[in-house]
Amino acid sequence: MQYNLAAEKMPTAWFNALPRMPEPLKPPLHPGTKEPVGPDDLAPLFPMALIEQEMSASPYIDIPGEVLDVLRLWRPTPLRRAIRLEQALGTTARIYYKDESVSPAGSHKPNTAVPQAYYNSKEGIKRLTTETGAGQWGTALSFACAQYGIDAKVYMVRNSFEAKPYRKIIMETWGAECVPSPVDDPSSPGSLGMAISDAVRDAVSRDDTHYALGSVLNHVLLHQTIIGLEAREQLAMAGEKRPDVVIAPCGGGSNLGGVALPFMEDKEVRLLAVEPLSCPTLTQGTYGYDFGDTAGMTPMMEMYTLGADFMPPTIHAGGLRYHGDAPIISSLVHSGRMEAIAYPQSKTFEAAALFAKVEGRLPAPECGHSIRGAIDEAMAAKEAGDDRVILFNYCGHGFLDLAAYDDYNQGRMIDA
Amino acid sequence: MQYNLAAEKMPTAWFNALPRMPEPLKPPLHPGTKEPVGPDDLAPLFPMALIEQEMSASPYIDIPGEVLDVLRLWRPTPLRRAIRLEQALGTTARIYYKDESVSPAGSHKPNTAVPQAYYNSKEGIKRLTTETGAGQWGTALSFACAQYGIDAKVYMVRNSFEAKPYRKIIMETWGAECVPSPVDDPSSPGSLGMAISDAVRDAVSRDDTHYALGSVLNHVLLHQTIIGLEAREQLAMAGEKRPDVVIAPCGGGSNLGGVALPFMEDKEVRLLAVEPLSCPTLTQGTYGYDFGDTAGMTPMMEMYTLGADFMPPTIHAGGLRYHGDAPIISSLVHSGRMEAIAYPQSKTFEAAALFAKVEGRLPAPECGHSIRGAIDEAMAAKEAGDDRVILFNYCGHGFLDLAAYDDYNQGRMIDA
Repeated sequence: MQYNLAAEKMPTAWFNALPRMPEPLKPPLHPGTKEPVGPDDLAPLFPMALIEQEMSASPYIDIPGEVLDVLRLWRPTPLRRAIRLEQALGTTARIYYKDESVSPAGSHKPNTAVPQAYYNSKEGIKRLTTETGAGQWGTALSFACAQYGIDAKVYMVRNSFEAKPYRKIIMETWGAECVPSPVDDPSSPGSLGMAISDAVRDAVSRDDTHYALGSVLNHVLLHQTIIGLEAREQLAMAGEKRPDVVIAPCGGGSNLGGVALPFMEDKEVRLLAVEPLSCPTLTQGTYGYDFGDTAGMTPMMEMYTLGADFMPPTIHAGGLRYHGDAPIISSLVHSGRMEAIAYPQSKTFEAAALFAKVEGRLPAPECGHSIRGAIDEAMAAKEAGDDRVILFNYCGHGFLDLAAYDDYNQGRMIDA
Repeated sequence: MQYNLAAEKMPTAWFNALPRMPEPLKPPLHPGTKEPVGPDDLAPLFPMALIEQEMSASPYIDIPGEVLDVLRLWRPTPLRRAIRLEQALGTTARIYYKDESVSPAGSHKPNTAVPQAYYNSKEGIKRLTTETGAGQWGTALSFACAQYGIDAKVYMVRNSFEAKPYRKIIMETWGAECVPSPVDDPSSPGSLGMAISDAVRDAVSRDDTHYALGSVLNHVLLHQTIIGLEAREQLAMAGEKRPDVVIAPCGGGSNLGGVALPFMEDKEVRLLAVEPLSCPTLTQGTYGYDFGDTAGMTPMMEMYTLGADFMPPTIHAGGLRYHGDAPIISSLVHSGRMEAIAYPQSKTFEAAALFAKVEGRLPAPECGHSIRGAIDEAMAAKEAGDDRVILFNYCGHGFLDLAAYDDYNQGRMIDA
């Protein structure tokens, strides 16, 4: 059962978490001087509009008309009630999911790729660089750059580049260039941290080029809040006053922030981050300043981290293998406003396969984490006999992750 | 810009073309006796409810509640106006597309797979067999069988089975079995006609088993009319009185019938079939009785055909390689109510790639035919200076057809 928002009801302003944080965020520090960075330090990488959003105290920030025009290619996205999943579980809970898989790139990533490409093109930038792991973010940015007529160059973690050629083909169809990273060592399998270093190095070397990051930063989470803002309206359409718990997978934190932040001020709403046990940043990391990349070129941010040189095992949910987490998410967990839980990947695929069978949709492995969390909440509701309202983010489809499903179906999946 | 129908506005009855045909259809003939077949001849293959629908004279046929429950997993589907495509073409036309790619299987096919699985399970059938080419229909039937707890066995054309393992993995995730066809000759690349023979042979050999066909038959087109019925409501939401032309790709004819038939009685609406030049059934075939399969086991139907032993060249739009066409579609073309046009695949990929760039979505190769037709209509409108309203069916996404896009991007695509 789906709840569709009319096109004219699509939100026209983003929800800014910064002025509402229980504990104010500490400033990012310059990687060399360890002093707080100012707008000028960030200007070689980002347009001024995004730097302002990164530090803004406005409660809401208007979405430009030319961004709304592109978001309307797929937004508003459906909210669906997973009635058949509820029946399969025999739960007293009501389970809703926000379907971000209907975007051109098949995930929530275009929600921020589009405004990032827009603001850069508006300030005269002709070319963006970025990194990508499994390829979700790279495809999203390629799509967004095509909409505003600017070039995209994507540094893709080498082992994904070689093992998963499909997302590269999508990027090329949208006109982008995609190369394996690290560029200077063809024998290295690469990592997200290394690819960030490659993309940043390229961006600072050319005046016409900026860098774009697909998660972690405040402005990225800001752009993703359209997910939760829409979901809030759609839950009301479904006759729900509020969700009791909002759940999303957490890699860098952008899809989690997107669905959860608009509910942060309602104390009756629990917020739940789900991460892989093999990269347990929020549940086992240290809270403190760390670099965002491997080479130490990015500003240092206060966050939960496993260490900038942490090399997570290869798991199928490539989007959840980041050593750190968004400062906003980290702070909410640190202050106790948000909960976090970690699962081994076999448990997340078990949930994804059940979901595929009863609800029909094939989730991305990242999304399997969301579903695992939602199922366990629904079972807890059944045990307690309450009619909990569960909202989770369906952040992407699994049509490009079928080898992982084959491993699971054939009993070959291992927990790293 | 999308026009979403509220869940409660989803049609609850299918539109039956049979009593409205300009020329009545001739009956199917028994492959052995060449006499008209009756319900009893079809009973080894199909449940009585579908046999009745195959010959029904009712103007509308109610959709059972248990079928509506499953369709609601993804329906109503969005109608979108392709404003950015219009702008790219500089056309005076308004272009709308009905997005059937949002279904669990990624195409329009589940619209009929679901009622077929339902009616069979209702009549006590425990197992369905079918054939599949590139895999769209096999995945759809696997999904549908999982919803009603019956088994599915899919005979997949061997060269697709070997070259495209992904759809098999999806079928297995939904619990189905998928084997290469022909089963008795591992050296043959196979064909859709051969796979039909394999599936029919299996079905007639077991009492608990029926056969399911994904296109061509009257009841299949009937189930697909929900596409056009929804689109009609959504065009009204967009302020359009009617489309001037309705366009869809034509393989067996089911997605074309689905979007076009509900408009057949409005003489001001042109209906346009688009087929590949390498399998030009409607534009170069013969109109007359022919078999549906290679082995001559299926009833003979009056239709446009290239001959049951026609072996089309391997093209990327695997769903459009059938030697025949639905009797309903064939008759509409024969009577002059429907137009048909054929394109080489390079022209359809050119259209698909443009669409992907400006509208963001990556179409299935079959769908590229629709888009080619829509673009050429839009250019004709620009030349004529009229404000033509164009509706086309976006019958599936291309996330599992990326090798074809790679061929196109790298200049390796050839016209067979």
